[in-house]
Amino acid sequence: MPSKGLLIVLSGPSGVGKGTVRQALVESHAFDFKYSVSMTTRNPREGEVDGIDYYFSDKASFEAAIENGEMLEYAQYVDNYYGTPLKPVNDMLEQGHDVLLEIEVKGAMQVRDKIPEGAFIFLTPPDLSELKNRIVKRGTDDLDVIQKRMTKAKEEILMMESYDYAVVNDEVDLAVQKIKSIIDAEHVRVDRVIDDYRQMLDK
Amino acid sequence: MPSKGLLIVLSGPSGVGKGTVRQALVESHAFDFKYSVSMTTRNPREGEVDGIDYYFSDKASFEAAIENGEMLEYAQYVDNYYGTPLKPVNDMLEQGHDVLLEIEVKGAMQVRDKIPEGAFIFLTPPDLSELKNRIVKRGTDDLDVIQKRMTKAKEEILMMESYDYAVVNDEVDLAVQKIKSIIDAEHVRVDRVIDDYRQMLDK
Repeated sequence: MPSKGLLIVLSGPSGVGKGTVRQALVESHAFDFKYSVSMTTRNPREGEVDGIDYYFSDKASFEAAIENGEMLEYAQYVDNYYGTPLKPVNDMLEQGHDVLLEIEVKGAMQVRDKIPEGAFIFLTPPDLSELKNRIVKRGTDDLDVIQKRMTKAKEEILMMESYDYAVVNDEVDLAVQKIKSIIDAEHVRVDRVIDDYRQMLDK
Repeated sequence: MPSKGLLIVLSGPSGVGKGTVRQALVESHAFDFKYSVSMTTRNPREGEVDGIDYYFSDKASFEAAIENGEMLEYAQYVDNYYGTPLKPVNDMLEQGHDVLLEIEVKGAMQVRDKIPEGAFIFLTPPDLSELKNRIVKRGTDDLDVIQKRMTKAKEEILMMESYDYAVVNDEVDLAVQKIKSIIDAEHVRVDRVIDDYRQMLDK
């Protein structure tokens, strides 16, 4: 039996570029992972295929899935539900595949409750790490602009606290490189591999 | 002020090839780190320089350093003490340098008590990960040989439990590559970087 796969959760504040980084990870072909298909109650658009672009569902079935604990995470936007079904993710992990989820912060927190052993990566806006420099040379920026940015920064740092890793998305290639290192490192964490070693002694 | 450096502890059972991996890490020049100089009570050998090869000390001073909590770790072999003074390591870390320690398992456990936030890497003998295959095709190996190896494996797995990462030393280049990934990943761990972010909001 293969070792269990690793769940990689890529998240961060809206507008940070999660989709771009995910796409670059896929295209880098540097490691194998499965990408989980979301479920939604919105209507399929032209060309969208059930089970590939989304699992399309009606509202009653989606709500039943929530009720029965079958959703790893979900959210409601406008009148539609969007979410990640739990079973396909668990199946892929059990088969030894790494699974990548690219989701909003609220969804990531739901995943943390259900699969706490995942690797939770917070993409950080470059202006958050630049903020320090800007504050230091205060006076060149409008104080009001700085204040607003400070408030937003506080919210972002509060979000970051619930994650394992914070990767600055200044250059996509650099962010991808760091995420690869994180995945390689997570694969050799003692708490992930020790059960395999222990099991072999029981054989 | 720079962020605090990362303490990297490279350890593992005797004979696993810690020195070879450390040397390859140094020669790879892939990242900067300081290497800590050990202190010993044994006499300097021809050509050894105090402060470079070792800090040479007399027995009374070494025992006073132990007594005063000035040793990060130490051990006694035959009639001499060997160990790592705490202050130079802490100074390098405070200055933002990563510090690499290559030490025995007992020493690593002492370091864990004093600097728990270090990255503790356990080098695993390749035959430990190969053991499973050998047990599966039991009969080709002498049962007595397998039993002895099993006992040793149990000891090694018990040691591994106190570490963060387990890296198989099958090929030195592969082990070095994994250690580099671990160091990159550790640098972006939220619990390492979040204080920097929090501090910038207090400015």
